[in-house]
Amino acid sequence: MLIVFDLVGIFFFAVAGSLMAARRGFDILGSLFLGGVTGLGGGVVRDLILNESPATFAHPIYFAPPVLAALLVYGFTPAIQKLHRLVLVFDAAGLGLFCVTGTMKALQHNFNPVTAVLLGVISGVGGGLLRDVISNVTPDLFNPRDIYAIAAMFGGTLTAVFWSLELFNPVVVVAIAALTFAIRLASLKFGWRIPLAAG
Amino acid sequence: MLIVFDLVGIFFFAVAGSLMAARRGFDILGSLFLGGVTGLGGGVVRDLILNESPATFAHPIYFAPPVLAALLVYGFTPAIQKLHRLVLVFDAAGLGLFCVTGTMKALQHNFNPVTAVLLGVISGVGGGLLRDVISNVTPDLFNPRDIYAIAAMFGGTLTAVFWSLELFNPVVVVAIAALTFAIRLASLKFGWRIPLAAG
Amino acid sequence: MLIVFDLVGIFFFAVAGSLMAARRGFDILGSLFLGGVTGLGGGVVRDLILNESPATFAHPIYFAPPVLAALLVYGFTPAIQKLHRLVLVFDAAGLGLFCVTGTMKALQHNFNPVTAVLLGVISGVGGGLLRDVISNVTPDLFNPRDIYAIAAMFGGTLTAVFWSLELFNPVVVVAIAALTFAIRLASLKFGWRIPLAAG
Repeated sequence: MLIVFDLVGIFFFAVAGSLMAARRGFDILGSLFLGGVTGLGGGVVRDLILNESPATFAHPIYFAPPVLAALLVYGFTPAIQKLHRLVLVFDAAGLGLFCVTGTMKALQHNFNPVTAVLLGVISGVGGGLLRDVISNVTPDLFNPRDIYAIAAMFGGTLTAVFWSLELFNPVVVVAIAALTFAIRLASLKFGWRIPLAAG
Repeated sequence: MLIVFDLVGIFFFAVAGSLMAARRGFDILGSLFLGGVTGLGGGVVRDLILNESPATFAHPIYFAPPVLAALLVYGFTPAIQKLHRLVLVFDAAGLGLFCVTGTMKALQHNFNPVTAVLLGVISGVGGGLLRDVISNVTPDLFNPRDIYAIAAMFGGTLTAVFWSLELFNPVVVVAIAALTFAIRLASLKFGWRIPLAAG
Repeated sequence: MLIVFDLVGIFFFAVAGSLMAARRGFDILGSLFLGGVTGLGGGVVRDLILNESPATFAHPIYFAPPVLAALLVYGFTPAIQKLHRLVLVFDAAGLGLFCVTGTMKALQHNFNPVTAVLLGVISGVGGGLLRDVISNVTPDLFNPRDIYAIAAMFGGTLTAVFWSLELFNPVVVVAIAALTFAIRLASLKFGWRIPLAAG
């Protein structure tokens, strides 16, 4: 079950990465690479921290979503001015799925719930962070005009709660991911924010 | 013993990271995240290289210093123009402790002294480097107007010498860390520098 | 056999890194550090993914090429305006060797050929990518005016083909590396390119 949600999440993030590459004028291989880093980066970092060989490299199927995403972006790129909004939507969809699957994977490894939620957040924000760092822009994660990591924390916490109640099933995964996605998009639309670092 | 010095070093680095987040106008969660990366990044990289699951994720206590640092910076942020100097002071304090504890941990893993000192330097400069890379600024490490890595090398080398003489104890740790801290600050005040890369 | 080619490749990349440090006005320790990251970064990432302790830290000999490179660049830096071209030439030489040795190492670990070629590409582009990310510039990898990763893919694929034919020997390594080097340089000279991400 985990792998299907993982692949869908990777696809969403890879589209976000490939769209950003298109916006920056990179070529199609750069688009594939940036999409791959965005989609697979969070999971690779999570697996390195869990001290196992990243699943990505053991199962070549993980490379299918970035290839598909780069081809789709190449074939159907919309008008360039719409790209920024599309990046945000696909990124939010990936965030929703990854914070759930990342938390699940850590719980399966018997981490305590607090660390498991944190690993879920790292899986969720890691790919986008790597994408922004590699593209040489200040990460979206630090944009104080909306909320990002807190949506992932919320999704990860719900995951840990349902897991400990032994109420976990695919419907719950989709519901939590959709809720996280909705919170992230609502924060963009309505400008929800949290206090700045300096009080 | 190692863990206490580790936690104090993490706290110093986390304050430096959270202060930089305040200076850049990030929100409080961005401040926590950047403080966490600064404080924990060097040690995680060191543990990944030692091929063990990072201590950070096995012991949740490691997350306490970044939380404390983010709250302190939120509550007591001084005037914004003083922030850059404060970042440098806390960063120097973290550097002093981390080059000692990083070298010690590698020596405990039976690495040879040269590699152990190098891992100490990586632990010391790694968190600040990640902070600067993620914040999208040219790393302080490369600033040719003062010395940084060489102070960490000095602290790591002293650590390896005392270790091989079997004269290692908490007093020695504090003394080496303080000396490294003093060298780093003196280099900032007096503009000590080393030759440029191009002769 | 692998180690000799590895050391030569590290040396080429380290010269590229130290030259970039000279061009950016870093000091000699920054030059050593940036050269070390460029030379050793790709291999360390590859070994972390293979889930083994990086060879770099087990064998101190791996640190010799960056030290040599930093000293050479310090002693013989040419006129500053020629530096950018020299960075590209040494980088291409490192790329040629690393895509071959990286693919070989993955094949020795019994990875399937597709993943092995990908790990070869990661070894080849990883060091330069880290160099650019740390120096806070948009990675050369994404420059759409020439080809980079595709040259590494070509070298890695040839390596996998010769390996599966059991025709692998040092002459083949040098030949594939030289061919990859030539393709990369030719793409720079003649402006070979591939389609942009947006169709």
